[in-house]
Amino acid sequence: MAVRRFGIITEADARTIQSGTTVELEKGGHVTPLAQDTLRERRITVVPAGGFDPALPPDLAPTAPVTRVAIGADHSGLALKAALIEHLRHSGTAVTDHGTLTADPVDYPDVAGAVARAVARREADAGIVIDGAGLGSAIAANKVRGVRAAMCTSVTLARYAREHNGAHVLTLGATLVTPAEARDIVDTFLSTPTREARYLRRLAKVRRLEDAF
Amino acid sequence: MAVRRFGIITEADARTIQSGTTVELEKGGHVTPLAQDTLRERRITVVPAGGFDPALPPDLAPTAPVTRVAIGADHSGLALKAALIEHLRHSGTAVTDHGTLTADPVDYPDVAGAVARAVARREADAGIVIDGAGLGSAIAANKVRGVRAAMCTSVTLARYAREHNGAHVLTLGATLVTPAEARDIVDTFLSTPTREARYLRRLAKVRRLEDAF
Repeated sequence: MAVRRFGIITEADARTIQSGTTVELEKGGHVTPLAQDTLRERRITVVPAGGFDPALPPDLAPTAPVTRVAIGADHSGLALKAALIEHLRHSGTAVTDHGTLTADPVDYPDVAGAVARAVARREADAGIVIDGAGLGSAIAANKVRGVRAAMCTSVTLARYAREHNGAHVLTLGATLVTPAEARDIVDTFLSTPTREARYLRRLAKVRRLEDAF
Repeated sequence: MAVRRFGIITEADARTIQSGTTVELEKGGHVTPLAQDTLRERRITVVPAGGFDPALPPDLAPTAPVTRVAIGADHSGLALKAALIEHLRHSGTAVTDHGTLTADPVDYPDVAGAVARAVARREADAGIVIDGAGLGSAIAANKVRGVRAAMCTSVTLARYAREHNGAHVLTLGATLVTPAEARDIVDTFLSTPTREARYLRRLAKVRRLEDAF
């Protein structure tokens, strides 16, 4: 499929582009502020000219911006989970809570597996899993086919995890980040798209590892 | 298989225990300093009484201490890889270098996949993979069956990744840690065992996720 290329994208242009697709912007090209809002609403991805590789599977990049989140936490992440659910719902994001709901100890692979499967089944655009350090949940979530999970301790890592690694699932350490830090990390993770062709090509290689081993 | 339980482990006891196995130490029990050296040499794991679950697969815990390491880096991690190889060989660890060897860009899934497969095939006791942030390599390495990979930015996380999550593969961000920090992180990672039964039970659940999805 040939990708449409634009020198300028106006609000009128933005309405003519099929929602959910990717278009190219020429070097030095311009998107009007009104068009930007429309592109975001219609989930249209704009990449630099030459940045779109039609040979790559169309579903490699995670959905962005995210509107539906699956969240889960082990017993150590209960309070942080509650704070993030409130934050996300307040900002209009649909949230499904995969537990745990009490302070009784639970096993992180159960929680991370439930969230990752919800993302793999496309019941959610992205997932968030909390345990003590976020490391175990990242290991467990990555074991689910089609899911890429990253443990992030900062906004910079969250942006990197999406831009470079197309992560669907964010894992957080309840002992490593404050609720305020976690909110910023989550906001960045959920709003950052994966666009560059060289990064998408690497995601195709991750998928091949999944299929082969 | 019943596990042997000791109130005190002397050097003579340590020589009678089969190498590579796990034994229990009673509450308030004691291991003599000489015995500790012998236990380490013979790769015998000592857990608190009741901490051994014979129903768990014997190969859940990663090998510790590590004597054979597989290492790899993308183009951004060349210098850090060289520093770590020198450090490890200087301390008597056998190191296999899975590249890259030049500054030409390579894809992190290729490097992480090669290191993870070496660990999965038990050609190495543990793996180290370096890219810009370590996030992509952790995702890719976790896609290989039997391998648990963790991105660590501190000694505390490295200890946690081993004690709690039984990680075999450490991933490092070349832009996130200095060579001196990386050496400390690596030393902690390679020398910390996974022993507690409740953590091993969770690793069995991670393995089930691998088998199911």
